[in-house]
Amino acid sequence: MDVANCELACALVGRTYIQQGSQALAARRRRIKALLSQRRLPEQGWDDATIEMLLQDAALMDSNNFPDNVGVGEREARVASALVARRHWGLAHGIGRSGDIAAEQPKAAGSSLLAKLTHLLAADALEVAGMKEVGTALVVPLATGMAITSALLALRGMRPPTARYVLWPRIDQKTCLKSIQASGFEPVVVPMRREGDQLVTDVEDIRREVERLGADAIACVVTTTSCFAPRAADDVVAVAKLCQQAGIAHIINNAYGVQSAALCAQVTSAWRKGRVDTVIQSTDKVDRVARLYPGRAAMAPLLDLLITLLHWGASGWRAVLAQREALYAYAQQRLQQFAEQHGERLLDTPGNPISLALSLSSFEAPAGQQGQVEQQPAAEQQPAVDRQQPAAEQQQRQQPVPITFLGSMLFNRCISGNRVVARGKRQEVGGLPFAGYGAHCDAYPCDYLTVAAALGTSEQDIDEFLRRLGQCFVEFRQRRQKQQQAAELAGGSSV
Amino acid sequence: MDVANCELACALVGRTYIQQGSQALAARRRRIKALLSQRRLPEQGWDDATIEMLLQDAALMDSNNFPDNVGVGEREARVASALVARRHWGLAHGIGRSGDIAAEQPKAAGSSLLAKLTHLLAADALEVAGMKEVGTALVVPLATGMAITSALLALRGMRPPTARYVLWPRIDQKTCLKSIQASGFEPVVVPMRREGDQLVTDVEDIRREVERLGADAIACVVTTTSCFAPRAADDVVAVAKLCQQAGIAHIINNAYGVQSAALCAQVTSAWRKGRVDTVIQSTDKVDRVARLYPGRAAMAPLLDLLITLLHWGASGWRAVLAQREALYAYAQQRLQQFAEQHGERLLDTPGNPISLALSLSSFEAPAGQQGQVEQQPAAEQQPAVDRQQPAAEQQQRQQPVPITFLGSMLFNRCISGNRVVARGKRQEVGGLPFAGYGAHCDAYPCDYLTVAAALGTSEQDIDEFLRRLGQCFVEFRQRRQKQQQAAELAGGSSV
Amino acid sequence: MDVANCELACALVGRTYIQQGSQALAARRRRIKALLSQRRLPEQGWDDATIEMLLQDAALMDSNNFPDNVGVGEREARVASALVARRHWGLAHGIGRSGDIAAEQPKAAGSSLLAKLTHLLAADALEVAGMKEVGTALVVPLATGMAITSALLALRGMRPPTARYVLWPRIDQKTCLKSIQASGFEPVVVPMRREGDQLVTDVEDIRREVERLGADAIACVVTTTSCFAPRAADDVVAVAKLCQQAGIAHIINNAYGVQSAALCAQVTSAWRKGRVDTVIQSTDKVDRVARLYPGRAAMAPLLDLLITLLHWGASGWRAVLAQREALYAYAQQRLQQFAEQHGERLLDTPGNPISLALSLSSFEAPAGQQGQVEQQPAAEQQPAVDRQQPAAEQQQRQQPVPITFLGSMLFNRCISGNRVVARGKRQEVGGLPFAGYGAHCDAYPCDYLTVAAALGTSEQDIDEFLRRLGQCFVEFRQRRQKQQQAAELAGGSSV
Amino acid sequence: MDVANCELACALVGRTYIQQGSQALAARRRRIKALLSQRRLPEQGWDDATIEMLLQDAALMDSNNFPDNVGVGEREARVASALVARRHWGLAHGIGRSGDIAAEQPKAAGSSLLAKLTHLLAADALEVAGMKEVGTALVVPLATGMAITSALLALRGMRPPTARYVLWPRIDQKTCLKSIQASGFEPVVVPMRREGDQLVTDVEDIRREVERLGADAIACVVTTTSCFAPRAADDVVAVAKLCQQAGIAHIINNAYGVQSAALCAQVTSAWRKGRVDTVIQSTDKVDRVARLYPGRAAMAPLLDLLITLLHWGASGWRAVLAQREALYAYAQQRLQQFAEQHGERLLDTPGNPISLALSLSSFEAPAGQQGQVEQQPAAEQQPAVDRQQPAAEQQQRQQPVPITFLGSMLFNRCISGNRVVARGKRQEVGGLPFAGYGAHCDAYPCDYLTVAAALGTSEQDIDEFLRRLGQCFVEFRQRRQKQQQAAELAGGSSV
Repeated sequence: MDVANCELACALVGRTYIQQGSQALAARRRRIKALLSQRRLPEQGWDDATIEMLLQDAALMDSNNFPDNVGVGEREARVASALVARRHWGLAHGIGRSGDIAAEQPKAAGSSLLAKLTHLLAADALEVAGMKEVGTALVVPLATGMAITSALLALRGMRPPTARYVLWPRIDQKTCLKSIQASGFEPVVVPMRREGDQLVTDVEDIRREVERLGADAIACVVTTTSCFAPRAADDVVAVAKLCQQAGIAHIINNAYGVQSAALCAQVTSAWRKGRVDTVIQSTDKVDRVARLYPGRAAMAPLLDLLITLLHWGASGWRAVLAQREALYAYAQQRLQQFAEQHGERLLDTPGNPISLALSLSSFEAPAGQQGQVEQQPAAEQQPAVDRQQPAAEQQQRQQPVPITFLGSMLFNRCISGNRVVARGKRQEVGGLPFAGYGAHCDAYPCDYLTVAAALGTSEQDIDEFLRRLGQCFVEFRQRRQKQQQAAELAGGSSV
Repeated sequence: MDVANCELACALVGRTYIQQGSQALAARRRRIKALLSQRRLPEQGWDDATIEMLLQDAALMDSNNFPDNVGVGEREARVASALVARRHWGLAHGIGRSGDIAAEQPKAAGSSLLAKLTHLLAADALEVAGMKEVGTALVVPLATGMAITSALLALRGMRPPTARYVLWPRIDQKTCLKSIQASGFEPVVVPMRREGDQLVTDVEDIRREVERLGADAIACVVTTTSCFAPRAADDVVAVAKLCQQAGIAHIINNAYGVQSAALCAQVTSAWRKGRVDTVIQSTDKVDRVARLYPGRAAMAPLLDLLITLLHWGASGWRAVLAQREALYAYAQQRLQQFAEQHGERLLDTPGNPISLALSLSSFEAPAGQQGQVEQQPAAEQQPAVDRQQPAAEQQQRQQPVPITFLGSMLFNRCISGNRVVARGKRQEVGGLPFAGYGAHCDAYPCDYLTVAAALGTSEQDIDEFLRRLGQCFVEFRQRRQKQQQAAELAGGSSV
Repeated sequence: MDVANCELACALVGRTYIQQGSQALAARRRRIKALLSQRRLPEQGWDDATIEMLLQDAALMDSNNFPDNVGVGEREARVASALVARRHWGLAHGIGRSGDIAAEQPKAAGSSLLAKLTHLLAADALEVAGMKEVGTALVVPLATGMAITSALLALRGMRPPTARYVLWPRIDQKTCLKSIQASGFEPVVVPMRREGDQLVTDVEDIRREVERLGADAIACVVTTTSCFAPRAADDVVAVAKLCQQAGIAHIINNAYGVQSAALCAQVTSAWRKGRVDTVIQSTDKVDRVARLYPGRAAMAPLLDLLITLLHWGASGWRAVLAQREALYAYAQQRLQQFAEQHGERLLDTPGNPISLALSLSSFEAPAGQQGQVEQQPAAEQQPAVDRQQPAAEQQQRQQPVPITFLGSMLFNRCISGNRVVARGKRQEVGGLPFAGYGAHCDAYPCDYLTVAAALGTSEQDIDEFLRRLGQCFVEFRQRRQKQQQAAELAGGSSV
Repeated sequence: MDVANCELACALVGRTYIQQGSQALAARRRRIKALLSQRRLPEQGWDDATIEMLLQDAALMDSNNFPDNVGVGEREARVASALVARRHWGLAHGIGRSGDIAAEQPKAAGSSLLAKLTHLLAADALEVAGMKEVGTALVVPLATGMAITSALLALRGMRPPTARYVLWPRIDQKTCLKSIQASGFEPVVVPMRREGDQLVTDVEDIRREVERLGADAIACVVTTTSCFAPRAADDVVAVAKLCQQAGIAHIINNAYGVQSAALCAQVTSAWRKGRVDTVIQSTDKVDRVARLYPGRAAMAPLLDLLITLLHWGASGWRAVLAQREALYAYAQQRLQQFAEQHGERLLDTPGNPISLALSLSSFEAPAGQQGQVEQQPAAEQQPAVDRQQPAAEQQQRQQPVPITFLGSMLFNRCISGNRVVARGKRQEVGGLPFAGYGAHCDAYPCDYLTVAAALGTSEQDIDEFLRRLGQCFVEFRQRRQKQQQAAELAGGSSV
């Protein structure tokens, strides 16, 4: 219903009414115009109708949706299932061309346009979040792991052929380690240093490794900002300075760190004061990665990002960021109270602005029982208990209940995402042996449980979590007590 | 993505590609332009993308979807559920205004536009189907019954106050009779005349009633064109001539008759040669009904019609009409064969171009057993049998199995829409007693089963129906035989 | 994914995880179970996923969606357009059968089930809103006008044949009057009585009409509870008592009155203390209407109601009702302030708990200029001005600007739903002449503007409305002033 | 609506009807049951309703959709936009876990189940297509290029550290070359051997390279089966035997080769008779790739595959495969006719069962004009002409029109996917210089144009393509002629 069609419509419905409707349509087209000319997040988020207007028009600009197109190539974005076509608005060509994911796709003007807009809005969103002057963004349809691998592969031509090591301040999360190995480099684990409750980057240790191995043997340092407490974010500024001095590349895995203003400020500072080659999210050296990403890619993840950013707009995006910061403070305070009531401590980890850790010291088994913990996987890895028919819980009664069982109890009460970390777990990851795995260091002094204040977490979530956690504490203690009694009884009767 | 926005997009994606996409968008807008300027069915049906383009733009022209609208009335088309909003594309105002369903709704330019288009395309579709020069169409969101009632109410002011009767050639379908009563008139049933297998309009009998009651006592004659065989379509041309002579109104219930070219030709002919006030589907005196329809109405049925007509286009619509005509011939031939194989007859009903009837004479119970049939409702009204657990079928064993049980068997074998009519059923409808109810006459000479060749029925449907019907015949005969044997045995032992 | 399928899934994905998922599915099935067994609004509203689970399963229980169905009837719910099928979840059979809208449809078990649930939940929602013990509800897919007509038609058999009049306390809204005429009755307008600012039911006048015409000549009284201020809701309790005494039927048009607790209480009281035959929304004598509604009907409106009620649940429904009551108080207070600032009055209409009226006395033209008002339709009926190109506004300059032009100004500023009522408008509706049309009485003492506090109106709506209204006041006065000056200048030069 | 809920529904709607509906629901559940127990493509494709039943139930088994879930992790699959949630049926967790894409995701039982089913059905679909006994399939959400890179990275641990080369029979498509470089290996280009029109694998040359470099210096050979004619599919059987003898890995890029029974048979044969480590599509050594894929991944591509496979079923899949084989024969025959009519040849390339090439010899410019071709990119890379405003076409008039301009003409006439290859193009790809780029060899004897007979191409597509190609031939010759005349004129006048 462009202006010409609205004029024709006046012959069917009163001009005054049609004109008012026509102006409403024009108002939406002006939003799209502003987006195309300013190429930034709209200040106010768009409603779904405007978002779909953009997507559908773009889809109709792709050749597979042309009314009179004849495709005689081997890949013409034909879609067999109407269900699939509909859920992607008919966008089926994907993005990029042979050998370059950032290239325009001649058959798909609309998809190419949406991809460009996604890159631009993503860059703006990063800036709104506090990552300043960090260059252009490239949104690749890859999860964090594959993105790190791609970034490492892209370093190959930039470092000497002798560069086979990647220095890696330890973080007990498999993705990063596997990414290093997948790219053909050899990881050198640099232990974290404990400072009070907190585990912080041992910059001096990194420096010593650089001296020991020689800068030319080292491809880069991979630092991590977003991690589970009590590990702090790596000191990316200090590492960036060190890398600049030594001439070593530096990749920052800022995965979900974008949601914290503090982390964004640190990344920005590292960028300004030292060397940062790639931030997993943004870099001006990203072109190399783009050219390295071989072939086309599916568009779904970009499209989801684009829709979400338009849905929020800059003000919505700022609002959810601010809510998260507030939520972190709220969670901190509530966990503090909870800890005091239950004889535990909220670990003091100011260097981690997203994740919090609650000690589980009061549940610690007497010496000599820790060996089993290792055999008892954390709740999330092997939740053993059924909610309705707690058969598994019953089976556990015969052996001393390990603290990780608390994780199973939470899982079965529909608490997801927290993590019970018991001391003493040994695990091999990618062929490397780790002591104290899960705690980011060989011997953290206590067991603990982590909670994240992430984008979208609500105060109700925290409250309900603590309510259920309190119940689990009670039940867990009762179970331990019964075991104790049974053991004593058994001990007595056996006499 | 109008031309200005496409121009801006050229700064992001290559001009050549954007231009090609822009032309594809323009091609769709031209289709909408053609619709708005020609106001006829597009020759070729539209794809869903173009249909949704029209609907969404129209929806955004309604005030409830204006970005900056402030509604302070009592009815502002606010929608509580996103699910509801989405399934109507945000169209929520309905159509019409207080007191006039055909009036434009100032708050809803888009809805008003779609309603107008629906009326125009519906008129064109009627003309394509063969109903010529029958005036403008008004699509009311009413099922057939309410539409007849509305048409009758609209007659009040046009007929003398003494006009209390409606002459009604009998058709055993409750809707029409109830419509007459709902409108406050008194129905006068005119029996059908049997001619061979066929039941035809007894025009002389109608004439006699007119003379007996006097024209001023009669509001109108309501004729029916679409009905179950062996009733033929009413002779609407003869009735129209009679009505013109007598100065009586004439309403034709052409409900689903539009799918038959023969019926459309008859209606057109009646219109040209005699008096027709309203065809349920089209009339030039429809304005009166429009003005009588009190208040606004929901838009959903109109919208479905509009989408369907655009989906077909004129060529698609002609194609489904032609397929139906061919299907009627196919069904006739296959039923003929089937009848011969099973010792039955396809009733000869050339006056009914949609419905066919197959005799069930070979199943007729010996004299003296017909009385029960009345108690045994037709399959469709009380299907008594479960497919997996044929408990009901078993229960029936004790009593002689009536022919209507064949209907239950078909229902349980997922055959829907056919009708087994047994002789001798008495039923009161709207306070009037009917003999031989279901057969459109007091005493049709045989039991029979009806089958329709309707829009969308396929040859496979007919084939599969006859396959299952053949099985039912076999099973039904076996059941009868067992009963017979059991009865003989019981008779024997009782001796 | 019933229990058996979940068991099979355990061979593919870990049992613990599948079981947790299976329990989540079971929790949703339990919600549906509770709905089917309790047949009341669920206390908590359902999310869309559960609503769609119900709708889709129901749709798959209709024969047109059976995998192996063969339809050989004339109406088998075949859907030509996938777009249409999808938006109705494949529900295509409609509700009811020939001659009875409340009857089960054998081919459509799912549709029949949803229709039953809609009736039951609607009754519960009415009770939650405050309409107690008013019998079963029947949701008919009719707008208010057709519902009143149907209710009146249903009275025919219940009142003597001499009953040709319907007593009707005047309300200047066309639907009700047209409904009375559509049903073949003759309306007798009973004027409202002014009491301070308010127009109230003149019960004595009704009584006088009953005496004058005789009870047997009167079919019923039709009262109205939801109307524009300064008309108050009719005194339904007094009228109900009068009807009981006189043996006359009584229909209450409670259209959107359900949103006010006060109106619901009055209807309940009328029901208990006097005679109420039908409340447009609910009645125990509704069966008669159901049996009268001829034929099947479209299901879309029922489905929308069902979705919305499930979406709200009882608590959500109570919440929106409570918000509306609060909003009325807010609007009253804000309008009061606004009136004081602008030298106007908020009319005192305690008998109307939904609509409010603001006097426009300060704009009244000097005597002798009122004649034109009649020619100048209210904004909503003929908004004459374009926002961008205020040609119409300019054209108006030559003649004295009538107060109804304020309505046009508001329309053009995207304020919908308010109504500017000028004194002295004469209009013929349904052949009856009305003086002071729009004001519900022949000569209301001042011009005014109405605002509704309806379900879904927000405080922001009221604030923004008053902001734009204030601007219009200023502009309107400026325009008047310029005219005045121009007139004086012209007057001067003409001397 | 499980059995218990259907039982409750019998209190609201007749038992017989509900039972029939219940059986229809059960029939759909049985389809899902068969899928879960047989884990193969259903013989008959599913309708959308059954597919959505599976997807929605699975989605509700993911923790982010649990009614009472509390997420306190950093990644809880929260979805900000309802539009995004809806298009993925609420599936938001992705697949895999840290470090293993094939691992179950504890928070997402439903997603994990769908991923497993996708892998199983994909394997079955490959077998139906003719790839027998090739082990389990892993569907990774990666386009071809990233999949090759991943496969190469996975080889690292399996080949000696000295293995730095990848032998690569030349194919002029950038993705594969970039994939080799992205993985850190060094490509060794092995030229194709011309045999008549066809370019075939020079197995002897590969053998020579193995001998020259030494097996331990070579990681693998990467062969390609699906390519543009006149290049034939690589002789994967011979290469597989050679690799087995030499102890070198062998990766087959079978990208879209699955659609050809001949190619599937060759891959199967290579698998049985020699060494194949990975087929991009299927391998039993795929576990290594799975473990290497770092981190989680988006689910969209898998979901699309699952929907499509269920939509087709085995019979639908076989049907589209058979249609494609028939289409290839049709295209071959029609191109043959066209070639004869226009003085060209359909190149004889029996080794390529998907792509066909038509010579463009009659357009060849006289010697000395080929140099420009290099500057003139192929149509798909820089379509220079606008359809409506052929400004670009006009600009071209001054210089001799190169054959690649034919590609631009086709692009502008909405022919997508064909490729005009001119002789003599030099291009650097990934730092390597190529002569005759686009033709897979340094000096192919003629220019040509390629056409693919791909899945979904129709006979109408071929016909319409040839119609438009014929027009382009005529116009191209006219343009050349005019140029010639102009040049002669200019030459004449310059004398």
